[in-house]
Order: sequence, then structure tokens, then C-alpha cells
Amino acid sequence: VSDPDTDRLAAIFEPLAQSVRELIDATVRTETDAATVAAAIAEIDSATARLRSVQFDGPVALQPIAASRRTWGNAVIGLRNPIAPPLLIKGEIGRVWADFHLGAAYEGPPGLVHGGVIALVLDHILGEAASDRQRPRFTGTISVRYLRGTPLGPLHTEATVVRTEGVKTYAVGHIADDEGPTVEAEGVFILPRWARD
Amino acid sequence: VSDPDTDRLAAIFEPLAQSVRELIDATVRTETDAATVAAAIAEIDSATARLRSVQFDGPVALQPIAASRRTWGNAVIGLRNPIAPPLLIKGEIGRVWADFHLGAAYEGPPGLVHGGVIALVLDHILGEAASDRQRPRFTGTISVRYLRGTPLGPLHTEATVVRTEGVKTYAVGHIADDEGPTVEAEGVFILPRWARD
Repeated sequence: VSDPDTDRLAAIFEPLAQSVRELIDATVRTETDAATVAAAIAEIDSATARLRSVQFDGPVALQPIAASRRTWGNAVIGLRNPIAPPLLIKGEIGRVWADFHLGAAYEGPPGLVHGGVIALVLDHILGEAASDRQRPRFTGTISVRYLRGTPLGPLHTEATVVRTEGVKTYAVGHIADDEGPTVEAEGVFILPRWARD
Repeated sequence: VSDPDTDRLAAIFEPLAQSVRELIDATVRTETDAATVAAAIAEIDSATARLRSVQFDGPVALQPIAASRRTWGNAVIGLRNPIAPPLLIKGEIGRVWADFHLGAAYEGPPGLVHGGVIALVLDHILGEAASDRQRPRFTGTISVRYLRGTPLGPLHTEATVVRTEGVKTYAVGHIADDEGPTVEAEGVFILPRWARD
């Protein structure tokens, strides 16, 4: 779903988030000298001051320019959040998936994705499967089972709703590399009180 | 534990990561115009190019300058990883805690920490409790139970080992705001094959 105002804002702010994602990777990997780092910091701080010249101080999910179907600031799917890989989730209500890439900033053990980042992604994708556009469902409990290490690089995740009982929706999902699943998860997602009839 | 070389490198690279963390927050919050964003992107890309002039392309956990007790690149505790809050973990083997702060970049529902970020932090702190300096233990399974929404801002987390049976160590923990626990977790952490006798 697209509208002109969202597209216009995306054209401005998505390249910014992508530029910061590159900077994050460079910050993790750099081995340059103190003078070069100091010069980089000066430029970064200047960019920060420019961006802060007009900024929103409330919850970013309620940011007026975010009043669209896209979730701009979200830590997993936010197109303008540099921390988000971001996941571009496809699918339908009850079954969703995403192909994504995790680089050096998401590392735990050498060459492997941090186990907590795995849980971060699975919590989001299962919750997305359990939610519909009008009524989000929030995590009640989630259990994650690690089958083997998940390598950094290109990955796939998917989630499916198993059943719904009243305000509880049960979902399962996994993350896979090109050799198959590395981690499985199951969770219970709750319809918040404000969204109940 | 401190050594002169680590301290020298920390003095160079920690301010860089902190500067990038500020930029991430500004990127999420900014409402400035297209021309200002374009000027910021130019500065950010210039800083990235400076940092990439000498960089390490292997797993960052094996980065030569990381050969110290500090885990520089880790996604939760990495002092030079801008994605990491970072957690500064205190305690002893079998019981650890951290006071930390989560800002706008970690948001899920309005004003609340993303449920997946909660799982990210708990996976790390439970694993830290279960590990000792010579022998890390990696997550086998973890279950997270959400008691209520966790507000963005200052938070506390802690974890304790319950028992060890062979290669399996059982740990529990929670995250709390100033009114008490918001989320509880329990997990099984496995001694990797290469660390067994």
C-alpha cells in the first residue's frame, strides 16, 4: 500500500537510515588511527546537530510523519531506524515471511548471529503473523530453541498462526540459512485490552 | 580488568560508537527538511569512507585489536558497536546484573521497548550468568514471559544460575523498571563441544 505523502517522506528518510547503517558497519570494523577517528566523529556530530534542528521528542511510533501504514521507527522493521536490519515482511494474515541480511553489527560468537538478535527477529515475525492491520497482538510468552549457530549473511524467516483461542493467538516460526532451519520458536500473542470488543 | 593497550584503544573507539549512537537517535527522531537531510547524509558518508580506509573484514569477535577481555563488537555489550545499548554487566560467576538505558531506537509499541529487544537483552544476560571467563555457554533454549509493557528509559536486568547438570546450565532472570519486574525469562545454556574436557 502506497500514498504520495508516504512515498515522498520515504525518499527523504530511507536513504538517511541506510547511510547510518553503513556507518554502523564501518564503526564496528574500522582499524584506522586516532586522528582519522576524530575527524569522523566531527562529521558525525555535525550531521547529528543538523538532524536534531527539528526533531520529535515523543514516542516515535506516534510521530506525525509516521501516520501511515509503514512503521518508521520500529526496532526490527523500521525503514528509518538504523538499528533495524530492516525486515521487509511479506505474506498475508496468519502467514508471513522475510528474506533479510545480518552483518557484523549483529554478531555474537565469531561469525555467528548473536542469539539475542535471533530472538529479536523471531519475536517480531511471530507477532506479525499473529496480528492483523486493525488489531495488533503483543507477545505474552515466546520460547526459542537454537538448533545450531546461525551464520551472518543472507537469512530467511517465516511464521504461521497455529490457532486462536479468545484473546490468545498461538504462532510458530523459524529462521533458516541456505541449509535449512537454525532456530525454531513458538509463542502466545495477546490482543491488548484496548483492541477487544 | 584493564591493560594499557585496551585503555588506549577504548579512548579512541568508544567515543566514536557513542557519537554514532547519538546519530541513530537523531535519525529516528528528525523531522527536518530534505536539503538538511541530504547535507547530513554527505557528512555521514564522508565519515564512513574515513573509517573504511583501514578496516577488518573477518568476524569482528576475532578482530586483532579486540584481543582483550572486552568484547568490542558484540550486539549487546560491545563498547564499539553502536547497536549495543551497551550493557555494562557487573557481578560474579553465577549472578550478574546491569543498569542500562533504552531510547527511541529500541521502541516497539508507542513509548514501550520492542518485545524482541527485551528478548535480546535477556538472552545475553542469562548467557552471561551461565558462562565463565574460560568457557562460554551458548543458548540452547530460552523462554520469555511478558508481565506488562516495559517503558523506554532507565532499566535494570539481572540473571542467576539455578543449577548445572553436565554440559547444561539453567539460568533465570528478569528486566525491571522502577516499579518492579516487567518481563521474566528462563533458559538452558550449553557448553560448546570445543570447550568440553
